[in-house]
Order: sequence, then C-alpha cells, then structure tokens
Amino acid sequence: MGLADTRFSNRRRALAATLAAQRIDAILVTDLTHMRYLTGFSGSNGALLLRKDLSAVVTTDGRYVTQIAEEVPDIKAVIQRNVGADLLENLEGPQRVGFESSFVSVEQFKKLEEACPEDVTLVPVSGVIEKQRETKDSFELEQLENVALLANNALEDMLEAGELAIGRTERQVAADLEYRMRKAGSERVSFDTIVASGPNSAMPHHGADDRVIESGDLVTIDFGAHLRGFNSDMTRTFVMGELTDFAEEIYNVVLKSQLAGVAAATPGTALVDVDRACREVIEDAGYGECFVHSTGHGIGLHVHEGPSAASTGKGHLEENMTLTIEPGIYIPGKGGVRIEDTLIITSGAPKVITPSSKELRVI
Amino acid sequence: MGLADTRFSNRRRALAATLAAQRIDAILVTDLTHMRYLTGFSGSNGALLLRKDLSAVVTTDGRYVTQIAEEVPDIKAVIQRNVGADLLENLEGPQRVGFESSFVSVEQFKKLEEACPEDVTLVPVSGVIEKQRETKDSFELEQLENVALLANNALEDMLEAGELAIGRTERQVAADLEYRMRKAGSERVSFDTIVASGPNSAMPHHGADDRVIESGDLVTIDFGAHLRGFNSDMTRTFVMGELTDFAEEIYNVVLKSQLAGVAAATPGTALVDVDRACREVIEDAGYGECFVHSTGHGIGLHVHEGPSAASTGKGHLEENMTLTIEPGIYIPGKGGVRIEDTLIITSGAPKVITPSSKELRVI
Repeated sequence: MGLADTRFSNRRRALAATLAAQRIDAILVTDLTHMRYLTGFSGSNGALLLRKDLSAVVTTDGRYVTQIAEEVPDIKAVIQRNVGADLLENLEGPQRVGFESSFVSVEQFKKLEEACPEDVTLVPVSGVIEKQRETKDSFELEQLENVALLANNALEDMLEAGELAIGRTERQVAADLEYRMRKAGSERVSFDTIVASGPNSAMPHHGADDRVIESGDLVTIDFGAHLRGFNSDMTRTFVMGELTDFAEEIYNVVLKSQLAGVAAATPGTALVDVDRACREVIEDAGYGECFVHSTGHGIGLHVHEGPSAASTGKGHLEENMTLTIEPGIYIPGKGGVRIEDTLIITSGAPKVITPSSKELRVI
Repeated sequence: MGLADTRFSNRRRALAATLAAQRIDAILVTDLTHMRYLTGFSGSNGALLLRKDLSAVVTTDGRYVTQIAEEVPDIKAVIQRNVGADLLENLEGPQRVGFESSFVSVEQFKKLEEACPEDVTLVPVSGVIEKQRETKDSFELEQLENVALLANNALEDMLEAGELAIGRTERQVAADLEYRMRKAGSERVSFDTIVASGPNSAMPHHGADDRVIESGDLVTIDFGAHLRGFNSDMTRTFVMGELTDFAEEIYNVVLKSQLAGVAAATPGTALVDVDRACREVIEDAGYGECFVHSTGHGIGLHVHEGPSAASTGKGHLEENMTLTIEPGIYIPGKGGVRIEDTLIITSGAPKVITPSSKELRVI
C-alpha cells in the first residue's frame, strides 16, 4: 500500500471514529468532493460506503472503470447504474446508515429509501466531513502552497511584462493573468477572475468587463488557480499612474488592517477575534461601514470552506487550518481597496503562502 | 415594460400553465439556473415564488439589492436571510406549492417544511422547467449562435496562427485557445478544454496534459465558451504531420457518421433515430464497439441539457431545440476521432452554428 493509500485511509479512520460517537454504523458519501477527499477518486459520478470497521466499497459508472481502479486501489469498486442507492441494497442486518443530508436531494433520498432493506435506518449527517476537512494534512498543505505560488508568480510575471497598464481593458488584463496561470499548469481558474478598476473597484463582486483602465484608478485583482483538486485565492490592489490622497489613505488603512489580521491568526484565537482585529483598524480610521464583507475563509478542495473569520464566526483557529485575510474598503462611485493573503496556521506566526508584495505599488 | 420583461414573463406564463394542469397553485423556484431563466436574475443566491395567477415575488440577500432591482424590474423583491424558506412563511390559505425536488436537499426541505403554514402542502416538482427549457426562444437562439461563433472563430484563428503544432504540449494548445476565447469576450470556458493527442485521443474524457504533440498524431480538441449565461460546445480532430491509413480510415467513418446525424436532425424525428443514424454508419464500418458514448445533447444555460440523442433517448426533436451531434471512434493505445457540431433544429435542415470545416485537415 503506497503513501496515497495511507493518507486516504487515515482520513476514513478519523471519520469513522467521529461517526461511531454518534452511533452510526456506516456512512454513504455521495458528495464528490468528499468522495475525492476520502478515497482519491476524481471522476464526476461515484459514491463511497464506509463502515465503522473501516471496510468500504466504492461505486461509479462504466466510464470510470479504469480510473477508479487506478485512483482507489485499496477499496473494492463496483460498477452500477444507480450509484449510491445500489450500495444500500445489499446491507445485511439492522443498522444506522448516515447519508449527506445537505447534499442529497429530496428526489435522491426517495431512491435511497426505496433501496434500503427494512431494518436499515437512514440518519442525516451534515457538516461532519466539512469539519474534518478544515484541518489539513501535510499533503494538502503542500498542494495548497504549490497552487498559491503558481498564481502568485503569474501575477508578478504579468506585472513585470507590463500587462496591467493604462489604456487596457479589465477583460484583457484578466485574460493575460489567466493565460499565464494556465501555461504554468493551472487546470482552470478557481473562480471568475476579478479585475475591478476605477469606480468598479468599489464593488466587491465586480467581474472583469470592457472598462478601459485610466490614470488615477485603483485596480483590484482577485483571482485563483486550480491544480489537482486544490484552489488558490489572493487579492492585490494597484494604483494606476497618479497616486491620489484618497487612494493612498484607504490603501494604507486596508494594509494596516490586513497586517493586523495576519498577526492575529494563531492557534487558539477565536475566529470572531481575527475578524475583529481587521475590522477595528478600519473602524478606527472612520471607514467601518465601508468594510461590507467578512474577513476570511478556509480554502482547500473548495475555494470557500471552513473556518469562517466573520463577526458571526464560531470556534477557534487550529494548527494546519488555512485562512484568507482579506479586508477591504469600498466607497461607491469612487473606488475601493482589498488586500488578501492565504495563510496556513502554524504553532507560531502564520505562514503566508501568497508572498507577493503588499506595499503600495503605483504602476 | 421592456423587451426583456416580456421574454421572462412569457416563460413564467408557460410554466404556470403547465403547473395548473397538475393542480399546483404556486411554485418555489430555488435552482439558480431556473431562477435566471424565469426572471433574468444572475446572482448566486435567490429564489422565486410564482403563483398560478402569475403574481410573483423574488428574494435574495443583501449583496444583491441593487442587482436584483436592475435585472428583475418587473417583480417585487424582498431581501431576506433564509432565501426560499422565508417566501413560504406568509402564504395565506390552503394551497399546493411545488418545490424543486431534484435540487432541494433533505436539509433544505426540512427548513421549507418548518416555514410553511399548516394548510400549505409542499408538492415535489421535477423536470418541468428542464422540459420547458429544451425549446429555445429567439433571444436564446441568438445568444447561443453568438457564443458558438465566438468559440468557432477562436479555433480557426488559433490554427491560422500555427499554435496547434508538433512539439507543443496539449496544455499549451488548450491555454492558447482559451486565451483567444477570453479576449474575444468569453467569460469562462463552458467546460474543461480537451486537447487529446496521439494515444490520449482514444480517451473520450482526457483533459489536456503535458504530452508533446508528435508527427502522425490525431489531436481531438473539444471546447466551449460561456457568454452571458449561455454555453458553446464543439469538437474537431486534426492529423499532425503525416496522415496514416489508420487515421484517414477512422476520420472518414466518423465524418460520414456525423453528416448522417446532422441530416437526421429534423423536427418529429425520434431521438433514438438520430442516435441510430450516426451509430449505423460506424457499425457498418466495423467500429460499432469503438463508439462508446451517446450521439448528442441539448445546450443552453447548461452545457449539457435535454434533449438527449442516445440509444435510450426518449421523445422527438422539435423546432427550436438545440442538439450536438458528436460521434466518435476510439481505439485504445492508438488514437481516436470525434467530430461535433451544435445544431439548431429548424422546420427544414438544421442550422449548424459551429461552421468550422470538417474536412480532414493535416497540420
């Protein structure tokens, strides 16, 4: 059994232990991200039945016969039509079987119920695998560092090549950045690239459109790559041509806020306090109402996952969690600034895996 | 009321008529594609409650206050926390309210049930809006033609620029093609680009990796753009450098099959017969077992949607449906050919909206 198998079987062991505490005898995993996390299978149709004794069976359809054998060498695979439901049919004896109630649709659930022998009880399970995924193992951290650095370097290379320039459109800049990530190995963007210039930078969820970048603009670039299942996410804001007092003022406030958030991101710190550390700096500067979103989120197989550093955030940071720190100030009609890093929480200061400079850059 | 409003209200009227026939008084639409189709709203969180008298209410969260007012000027919007469930709370009087049972999770359904007044009955609705979406209106057809032509022209430009060449990797070619689509206005790829060369072309679902393209290779490029909600999808296969007897033989069989499929795609034709038209040509040439997938699918707001031209396909083609025709032959270890057009079904011969040449091209 190779290294990969140990990684996945360790995750399955941890999950089975959590479920045993809830008197659950087996779990049917149908969410594909969770299936990938627990087995390594990356196809677009499949399910896993994991029992508390760690015995397991995976299933997929005919398209993935070869792939599932290669990716999941350590679990018996069956090829079936009704992936998921078919795994329940042959269960023997009275037992409580968990299903993913936040992913299984009402229609799918009806099929699962119909497939179940009478003495099997289906039990809703929600948030358990998500919670486990919040703390990363060394393989995941290595992959996340790789993809973050790939994206980070694409941005720096793009800047060096002069592709962020007055007179170009937001869309052209986004296309150039994506092209550089793609050539460096990224399989796709982790989310639609944001290049928000001038007044558009005041809209946190602006995309990238045909607006031509002008002198005096703030330009916020928020983007990410995707590599072997893992995502990256980072934001930098630049000043074009002429630095106005307005731009310098809000840039420096956001930078100070961002650095305060990074400094607060240590194990044991409550997530609300990480959010507070960022928000306080912005409030103290008189821009509290202009920071309209939360401070950050975990990242991994999903670009947004737990933990959540928000004013309503629950729980504490733990070692080997990931977290973005991304405060912003947005002034409608004028412009905005957002600065975002991705961190790995360590026993000491967090490790910033998006090392691009955060000093104010006038381009 | 502008043109856009008429388009959406026409769709809502058609849906309400279908539901009335099932004695459903209102429907809660929570799938975001369906919400967009019925209202024009393109945000990432929202719901629509449509009553049989065509009165309606939409909901979203605070991030989209401005956007929903702009995109859906003709329906009252409420800003709520529990999008969907909150719309049910204020229903008055006994009524049957449909919900989308193939999209609503077991967990979400519990919240909907809790929100409902006692005399409201929730009724599962599945496949109704999907069925309505199979037949496109003139606006949808125009958008689909635009995005198909954008992608088509990016491929031709890329070929003309010599970017598909011996010595380059699959990934480089995919990056170039995506970059051209992006610069031409595409917001993202409609699915991960396939550039499958040499032995990789024998795998229908191969992506684009670091394999270097060699002389004698078949190279299958399957790709699409995305513009304002609408997707494109097309495939061409090229021969690199030297044309072998093997490549010429299977290319010509697939081309003949593809042309037979296009010729069969007329209103009233059973979907199984469109599949049969393609499959027969390949079977007659002795490659029946090498055509391992179905013949085609509809395309619109989703890159794969109804109708399905498969050996198990149900129903008939109708005017203003879209359909891909994409037969293939795959010989493990040696290579494969797939040729795919997207068609609009008209009263006469179908309109091919991916006009790139299908003649065998040696590059």
